[in-house]
Amino acid sequence: MKQVRCARCTICGREYPAVPELTTCHCGGILDIVYDYDYIRSVLTKETLAQRTNPTMWRYRELLPVEDSTPDTPLRVGGSPLYAQSALADELGLDALWIKDDGQNPTASLKDRASAMAVAKAWEAGAEIIACSSTGNAASSLAGNAAAAGLKTYIFVPERAPKGKVAQLMIFGAHVISVRGSYEDTFRLSAQAIERYGWYNRNAAVNPYLSEGKKTVSLELAEQLSWQMPDHLAISVGDGCTIAGVWKGLKDLYALGFIDRLPRLISGQAAGCCPINRAIRTGEDWQPMEENTLADSIAVGVPRNAHKALCAIRESRGLAVDVTDEEILQAMTFLGRRCGLFGEPAGVTGFAALHKACREGLIERGATAACIITGNGLKDVANAIAAAGEPICIPPDLEEMVRQFRIRGVTVE
Amino acid sequence: MKQVRCARCTICGREYPAVPELTTCHCGGILDIVYDYDYIRSVLTKETLAQRTNPTMWRYRELLPVEDSTPDTPLRVGGSPLYAQSALADELGLDALWIKDDGQNPTASLKDRASAMAVAKAWEAGAEIIACSSTGNAASSLAGNAAAAGLKTYIFVPERAPKGKVAQLMIFGAHVISVRGSYEDTFRLSAQAIERYGWYNRNAAVNPYLSEGKKTVSLELAEQLSWQMPDHLAISVGDGCTIAGVWKGLKDLYALGFIDRLPRLISGQAAGCCPINRAIRTGEDWQPMEENTLADSIAVGVPRNAHKALCAIRESRGLAVDVTDEEILQAMTFLGRRCGLFGEPAGVTGFAALHKACREGLIERGATAACIITGNGLKDVANAIAAAGEPICIPPDLEEMVRQFRIRGVTVE
Repeated sequence: MKQVRCARCTICGREYPAVPELTTCHCGGILDIVYDYDYIRSVLTKETLAQRTNPTMWRYRELLPVEDSTPDTPLRVGGSPLYAQSALADELGLDALWIKDDGQNPTASLKDRASAMAVAKAWEAGAEIIACSSTGNAASSLAGNAAAAGLKTYIFVPERAPKGKVAQLMIFGAHVISVRGSYEDTFRLSAQAIERYGWYNRNAAVNPYLSEGKKTVSLELAEQLSWQMPDHLAISVGDGCTIAGVWKGLKDLYALGFIDRLPRLISGQAAGCCPINRAIRTGEDWQPMEENTLADSIAVGVPRNAHKALCAIRESRGLAVDVTDEEILQAMTFLGRRCGLFGEPAGVTGFAALHKACREGLIERGATAACIITGNGLKDVANAIAAAGEPICIPPDLEEMVRQFRIRGVTVE
Repeated sequence: MKQVRCARCTICGREYPAVPELTTCHCGGILDIVYDYDYIRSVLTKETLAQRTNPTMWRYRELLPVEDSTPDTPLRVGGSPLYAQSALADELGLDALWIKDDGQNPTASLKDRASAMAVAKAWEAGAEIIACSSTGNAASSLAGNAAAAGLKTYIFVPERAPKGKVAQLMIFGAHVISVRGSYEDTFRLSAQAIERYGWYNRNAAVNPYLSEGKKTVSLELAEQLSWQMPDHLAISVGDGCTIAGVWKGLKDLYALGFIDRLPRLISGQAAGCCPINRAIRTGEDWQPMEENTLADSIAVGVPRNAHKALCAIRESRGLAVDVTDEEILQAMTFLGRRCGLFGEPAGVTGFAALHKACREGLIERGATAACIITGNGLKDVANAIAAAGEPICIPPDLEEMVRQFRIRGVTVE
């Protein structure tokens, strides 16, 4: 990989050759892939990119830690739509607002980007089995992308994972271990099993390549915005790997000169589980928290990528905004009714945080912002119904319908 | 609309000007939009298409019945991925097999194509409210596309509609009337309400523009295959509007000279509700049937577009293949495990039919085929779990995991 120099520990700075089986540093720190931007600049320009018809994340291959000979993974990951929302921008006091719907991925979440990367690296490692623990989306994306690639998966989820995500796992033929315990319990069990059996490890807490897959969401965002970055970029934060990946992509583009400014990150966490945001506010190190939110994908009380995430948010002079479960459900119906977009609770937490930041004056009027919806609402129907209610149910009779409309104050024009 | 000549009744041949509010013929027949292919040939070539970067269904604007001045609808509808499945083709005795995953649409079904068209025509009609009845997907796609376009919706669904689809409706802010009765009851109630209130009618049984939206799936398929059509094209059939739209798109391309042969259609219906396939087999007119299948989107006992569908299947010298609910569930897990694709029951019925046709020798060995998955499996999680089962649930203990693996015969390599 000419484009990659090495992997460097985010804690102690120790460097390692970027072999496919790379895990954490001897000191326990998570590694970061270091690129040779001079080389990349010599082989990748905005113009060459503009000519590519490949709509997937692999269009950014020169910026990804894979061998030239490694094929694109089978499913069409990436290329999710970016919607300009001018009416909504007005309402929020913004000059412009863009929403990127990353629920439009093969298994309906941003995690497909990391899982496609895991498949590519497992191929390079000659592995036939990949394992991970996940609150749900990393799991279902790994199961789907691995099935398409002919790889077996062992997947550990906490028992609370929503039915939609578990159904995906089972359909994709993963070996699923549902764990009666917290995400932390689930993670620990997966680590023990991976160590015992030598499976390829797709835990974002361990595998430094995954955030490189995730960063493609910000590469895409920047290209879709013709390399003009907004003032703020909001995203939901759980383990911290996604926001770290988003930031990495932006810094890559800045280093290459593709963009000339970096947005400030808005880290959206659930008030019931916000260890990373709390650390931003206190300025101290993060401390574990309970996992007390319905936004299951970001209910991570012991975030393994907290260090990377905190560095990213601080470096960007970002905002940490906690939102209540009620505000998350409101964001779901708001985006549904106003934009026709349907995100799962954890998927819209970034938007909920942005909305709150605008309401509370944390963002200057006239600023520009983008946010990313990280997962589709169909993954968690129970919470969608909690957010939006149930329909009127009647016999097939027009007069009864009219009567029900009258009772409920439904107008017909 | 220079590209459109008129609308013509599929029963009596009477012609009408193609106004946006068009419904059925005076004789009750469904209308078909008639194009001026000479004009279209003068403004659209394969080469001009190849240069377009618009990935949505509106890239085929010259072949669609909308005014030049009508904007593209807001959500990114169309541009769904087509996957070549060579290993699967081998297994089925085919020379090549392609699967188009149309569950990768904004509201996760092919119906987004029709609903985007409905929104465009409602705009042209100056309407602010759209209504429809639906077994679920037409409903959720209309709700999402209309919400994004700032239009109100009144939507009638049978009570049996799966929770995922109902949740979408509620999130998108539709006025939802859940009807205790069959799809036929639901349809009748919607027709009465639409007549009383003058809402724009998005019932595919009435509005001739919808199948024009749906036809974009075969325009795309052909373009993705570089205009080389397979021998067979399999699709799930319920009301009949979708297969009729698919055929219309192919005939358009044939009339323009973009493709030089037409595939034979494979009409996949559920054995418990197959009025269209039964008519193909008997050679007689269709008769109503009970709606006795778990594939809710195609459980249509009184198909309103049966005539158009029957003409399409017969004209293509097509095959009518019924599949049992068990075969449908098997197709779900088969596609999940082998391809990483997750379709809802009705979404994979076309593939189930193709698979069965191959098994039973109804298709010559060495033929080529394509099939379309019409909806995402996340819409109907209950049936996905019925198809694929539930996971092993254990406390966070490695030895317990090993014990459970042993009991269940799960290997670890």
